[in-house]
Amino acid sequence: MTTVTPIPVLTVESVPGYLAARDDLAALIDLGSITVREIGDGNLNLVFVVQDAAGRGLVLKQSLPYVRMVGESWPLSQDRILAEARGYDAAVAHSPDTIPTYHGLDHARRIIALEDLSGWTVWRRALNDGLVAPGAAAAVGRHVARVGFGTSAFALSSDAVKLATAGAINVDLCKITEDLVFTQPYTDHPDNAWVPELDRDVLALREGGLVDEIADLKHRFVTHAEALVHGDLHTGSIFVPTSAGTSVPAKVFDLEFGFYGPIAFDLGALFGNVLLAQSRAVVLEHSEEFQSWLAGLVREAWEAFEQEFRALWPTRVDPSYTDAFLDRWLWQTFTDAIGFGGAKAIRRIVGLAKASDIESLEPAEHVAAARLVLTTARAWIEHRAELDTPDDLARLTADFLGRA
Amino acid sequence: MTTVTPIPVLTVESVPGYLAARDDLAALIDLGSITVREIGDGNLNLVFVVQDAAGRGLVLKQSLPYVRMVGESWPLSQDRILAEARGYDAAVAHSPDTIPTYHGLDHARRIIALEDLSGWTVWRRALNDGLVAPGAAAAVGRHVARVGFGTSAFALSSDAVKLATAGAINVDLCKITEDLVFTQPYTDHPDNAWVPELDRDVLALREGGLVDEIADLKHRFVTHAEALVHGDLHTGSIFVPTSAGTSVPAKVFDLEFGFYGPIAFDLGALFGNVLLAQSRAVVLEHSEEFQSWLAGLVREAWEAFEQEFRALWPTRVDPSYTDAFLDRWLWQTFTDAIGFGGAKAIRRIVGLAKASDIESLEPAEHVAAARLVLTTARAWIEHRAELDTPDDLARLTADFLGRA
Repeated sequence: MTTVTPIPVLTVESVPGYLAARDDLAALIDLGSITVREIGDGNLNLVFVVQDAAGRGLVLKQSLPYVRMVGESWPLSQDRILAEARGYDAAVAHSPDTIPTYHGLDHARRIIALEDLSGWTVWRRALNDGLVAPGAAAAVGRHVARVGFGTSAFALSSDAVKLATAGAINVDLCKITEDLVFTQPYTDHPDNAWVPELDRDVLALREGGLVDEIADLKHRFVTHAEALVHGDLHTGSIFVPTSAGTSVPAKVFDLEFGFYGPIAFDLGALFGNVLLAQSRAVVLEHSEEFQSWLAGLVREAWEAFEQEFRALWPTRVDPSYTDAFLDRWLWQTFTDAIGFGGAKAIRRIVGLAKASDIESLEPAEHVAAARLVLTTARAWIEHRAELDTPDDLARLTADFLGRA
Repeated sequence: MTTVTPIPVLTVESVPGYLAARDDLAALIDLGSITVREIGDGNLNLVFVVQDAAGRGLVLKQSLPYVRMVGESWPLSQDRILAEARGYDAAVAHSPDTIPTYHGLDHARRIIALEDLSGWTVWRRALNDGLVAPGAAAAVGRHVARVGFGTSAFALSSDAVKLATAGAINVDLCKITEDLVFTQPYTDHPDNAWVPELDRDVLALREGGLVDEIADLKHRFVTHAEALVHGDLHTGSIFVPTSAGTSVPAKVFDLEFGFYGPIAFDLGALFGNVLLAQSRAVVLEHSEEFQSWLAGLVREAWEAFEQEFRALWPTRVDPSYTDAFLDRWLWQTFTDAIGFGGAKAIRRIVGLAKASDIESLEPAEHVAAARLVLTTARAWIEHRAELDTPDDLARLTADFLGRA
């Protein structure tokens, strides 16, 4: 599973030569007029944007043999790009319009090539700027439904889903999620970090049974192999258009955490990151229009997910999964998504990987927003089994955010 | 995954030569005085018992390239013996006293060698004969706890459990269980069979929401990858001693259905087959002593399982699984085991693979016992979430079996 010999990494200088040797990619762009920028702002990889004078572009992504945000002291197999390639292959098959155009994998160099989305922006940035992205949440909900259904035992034969499950194990990246989302925030771990004003709030997370709920969620994450999930579907893994008129309101990227896991985990990642955006908007006193739109995003995502899943349901290969089973499965998935969402929100306040929604705030606002996240996320987790609909969840959230 | 070229099958005549070429096995027995018998009475494989004049023995088991009970028209990869070998390796590591001594795998010939248990009998036969097997259910419960815990994310590191899960996929055998346990009994399938007197009882299984519960159980079976489970742990996969004085009251065998699945499935297999034995005992009016003992077997198995699991719990590698989580997990496992048990019992009445508990009865008794199984198993499945303890389950079972 592990790449032993490090693979040569791309540089801004070496990208033109690499492209010249790749006929398939060289045909997409005028190599004589390209500019190359390295823009990887994520935690793990190199990302190059290549654009030519005619305005055509493409993106190259290469995994590094270590965790970029920490450095070479945290080695990580470059094979994670293979997980990303698997994710793109599945998305191409099941939901091609909600991902950047995928130009394939260079297995030897651990490089994938993608459509340049320079005319788009990462959704988290747009949320931080108070910008409405109409239909983005619904597009993501549809994406999760299509890829989730299409790679599950509902759509695939018994042998195909088992072989796909075994082929998609993602040891290193799943371990990161297990540790950073479900373990470290609830323990004394050196990678945790928060401002002293939050000491009492963070330590309170370890009391009163929340850790038992987190254990349950962790066990679901580890053992429920339902479908090929994105695995890290926060608002920083979603592009939204910067200008009106694009036909698709969101595109999902950064698929390297993919594995066979609970479909609810992807929905929960979105839910939890919407809560970060909502908490930011409250303390910044963003417009009522923006906050109302934010407050409807979980419903928008869930309803699109449910509608798409129900639309696909008659195409299932195994009729022993009945309509009444689907109702129950959807309810359980919604419940689990709320729980996962709470866990994903909490880790962004307490754990190693932070989110700019909260981190970019001034100190007093940072503390206030972080408290809103922690108290609301906890309520999500503890009350998730009583929340039957997105409206139930929205009411609870509004109560905790002081938006009655 | 599939063996393309059939591997030469052993015969009674070729076994001595095979053993002579296997130094490790030849050392266990006097080849000059052996007798060889083929005793495979299961559904899938060749099983040879080899005994020498000094009373020493061993067993050779070889997978056939088809399903034995059906014939060459149902081909099946001989690689299933590799699943069995994985199961023995895990049992040797975690619960060596509840399996026959394992003498290893001949990978090229798809043959495993085991201790000869001629002094033992298959538990189903002993149950059919009305014989009490003291402590057998508890031994099986302990076995499930030890192997289940030891191969789970509770005992293994994150990467180890993922690699083990991927390495233990068992495509062909899981498909058999999915079809024969969870699908065919609830559909018009040509492999189903029952006597005409049971027409109404069997067709009633397809009405009133039972199929929705079966769908839920099937989805758990397919997606909940908790631990390396036995996968077929009925009373025909368990040996009990025929004479007092053995140190171990039961040994588990026939591990070829093993895969990473729900631990509850193994417990459920035992529960469901106890119900078959109980229903037989009721119609045959076995002694009150025997029937009382039967009625306590589910509790005996569950309590031993729970006790052993709780004893192992402090050795878990991941302390984020809390004690309160364990309580909840045990409750869910008990609930799921009841559901799986009901499904396993029903399939023995309706589906392809029958059980001698019921099949060997005279016609009137056969119908009466089958009806008891079907009605009780249905109640197990439909009420499983309300049954918190083995006593709750025993009361429900006694009501349906008319043993108030």
